Amino acid sequence: MLKKEESFMREAIGLSIENIDNNGGPFGAVIVKDGKVIAKGVNRVTSNNDPTAHAEVNAIRKAAEVLGTYDLQGCEIYSSCEPCPMCLGAIYWARLDKLYYANTKQDAKDIDFDDSFIYEELDQPIEKRKIPTIQILSKEAIQAFNKWRKKEDKIEY
Amino acid sequence: MLKKEESFMREAIGLSIENIDNNGGPFGAVIVKDGKVIAKGVNRVTSNNDPTAHAEVNAIRKAAEVLGTYDLQGCEIYSSCEPCPMCLGAIYWARLDKLYYANTKQDAKDIDFDDSFIYEELDQPIEKRKIPTIQILSKEAIQAFNKWRKKEDKIEY
Repeated sequence: MLKKEESFMREAIGLSIENIDNNGGPFGAVIVKDGKVIAKGVNRVTSNNDPTAHAEVNAIRKAAEVLGTYDLQGCEIYSSCEPCPMCLGAIYWARLDKLYYANTKQDAKDIDFDDSFIYEELDQPIEKRKIPTIQILSKEAIQAFNKWRKKEDKIEY
Repeated sequence: MLKKEESFMREAIGLSIENIDNNGGPFGAVIVKDGKVIAKGVNRVTSNNDPTAHAEVNAIRKAAEVLGTYDLQGCEIYSSCEPCPMCLGAIYWARLDKLYYANTKQDAKDIDFDDSFIYEELDQPIEKRKIPTIQILSKEAIQAFNKWRKKEDKIEY
């Protein structure tokens, strides 16, 4: 039946539509815990001059703030569109339990958003990507990881 | 020779080491424009309770704020570690010109960070991913994209 899930998704879709009139992109997301919406997000990239301000990232940041933790286990995200790689990465890092989406990355491509392009790029080996990517100073950088390994009171996540 | 590039990377590596003593993860990044560092970032996930607060995301948000634009063309990023999918996505959205990195995602895996796992997940089709992912209400959600398509004064990016 999915009645509850549909009502959460309708809220995300409502945000995506409303945001267009508010100088934002056509994307909305809500995060739900124990059957209640605890955070909302919309795309504010151009309005906030923040390339990371996608609906899902904003909703995740807000939910983490509300709950006072970086670990959103026990929460679900409802996104009006299939997340781009940045947002999907954020969803994994936040350890959300479940992802509902409505529009697809192909739909996003059809209105000229780069989601598909970025998915294709991530599939390419580094040397074939459009963005020139160069490894330097690995021997110096590994010192940070060695130091991390030895730290006893670190918070692992 | 890469002298300049090495000095920018050393700054990113320095941040990654310093951040460990400052209750952060072992990651640092700097963004360079016209031969000058304009923004820095370190991993503040656990200290700020923000799962998106990786070094690269923080540096990108800062650079966009400093320059007053979501479009970081003309800038390069130096990251002490190969970016995770979230950060690589952010790098594409920000349209950075070039990416320098030092540690690899395998190095990150060796100290128990999930980067490799997330790369593997993104390569899987939706139905095979560890996070249950369900599409609903696509017919309602597409209305936002149709509305976007018709909007005349929209800012495309």
